[in-house]
Amino acid sequence: MTLFIFKARKSQYPIHPLILSRRSLRVMSGEEMSDEELFPLFEAARWSPSFYNVQEWRFVYAKRNTRHWNKFFRLMNEKNQNWTSNASVLIVLLSNMYNTYKGNKSFIPSHSFDTGSAWMALALQCNAQNLVRIFL
Amino acid sequence: MTLFIFKARKSQYPIHPLILSRRSLRVMSGEEMSDEELFPLFEAARWSPSFYNVQEWRFVYAKRNTRHWNKFFRLMNEKNQNWTSNASVLIVLLSNMYNTYKGNKSFIPSHSFDTGSAWMALALQCNAQNLVRIFL
Repeated sequence: MTLFIFKARKSQYPIHPLILSRRSLRVMSGEEMSDEELFPLFEAARWSPSFYNVQEWRFVYAKRNTRHWNKFFRLMNEKNQNWTSNASVLIVLLSNMYNTYKGNKSFIPSHSFDTGSAWMALALQCNAQNLVRIFL
Repeated sequence: MTLFIFKARKSQYPIHPLILSRRSLRVMSGEEMSDEELFPLFEAARWSPSFYNVQEWRFVYAKRNTRHWNKFFRLMNEKNQNWTSNASVLIVLLSNMYNTYKGNKSFIPSHSFDTGSAWMALALQCNAQNLVRIFL
C-alpha cells in the first residue's frame, strides 16, 4: 500500500512516511467496519509500553447501527457530534488510574501518558490500513 | 531498511511492522548521536495531534559528555540510572498543563495524553532509524 502524503505537508527533517502521512480527518463515510479491520487497531495499541507493563488503557467501542451507539454518541458535545455523526465506530479511551499489586493499590502517574501512546499506535495502524484517506 | 521482529513476538491480528517491531531495550552502546540522527525524532513527535493543536509537549535533551548531562542524569532514581548510564541522549518530556488564549488561561485536560502520543511517534521514529536494535 502506498501512503498518501498531502503536498503541503513538508517535514523539516526526514521521518517515516507512516508518521508523516497520519492525518486527523473529520469527514466520514459511515461505511460498516468489519472486525477484521477493527481488531488490528486495538492490537497495535496493545504493544505499547506502560508503567510496569500494567497496560492500564481500556478501549471501549460501539459500531454504528448497534445497541450502544447512541449511548456513546451522547457522551460528546454538539460540536464533536457534528463531525462524528457518520463515524463507523466510536471508541472511548479510558485509563485505570490505579494499580493493585500484592494487595497494595497505588496511583499510576503515567496512566494518561501511557494511554496516549497506545492511542498513537492505534492511529498509525488506522493509517497503515488506509482507513484515513482523501478522495481528490 | 528491514525491521527486525523478534521471533517470540506474534501478534493476534496483523499490524504494521514498524509498530510490532518496537521494543524497549535497556542495554545501550553509548555511541555519540549526531543532530542528523536526533532531530528527526523530535520532528516525528511534532506531527502529533493535540488539544486545539496547542502542541503542549516539550522535549528537553542532553547529549552524553555535554554540560547538562549530569543534571539530567541525577533526575532519575538509581534503578533507572543503572540502565541509562550508557545512553547517548537523555530526553525529559514535559507538558504544559495550561493554554493561554486571548488572555484566558485554561487547563488542558489531555496534556499528558497528548504528550504520550507524541512520545510514541518519537519512539517509532527511533525504530524506523534502526536506533533500537539487537546484536545476536
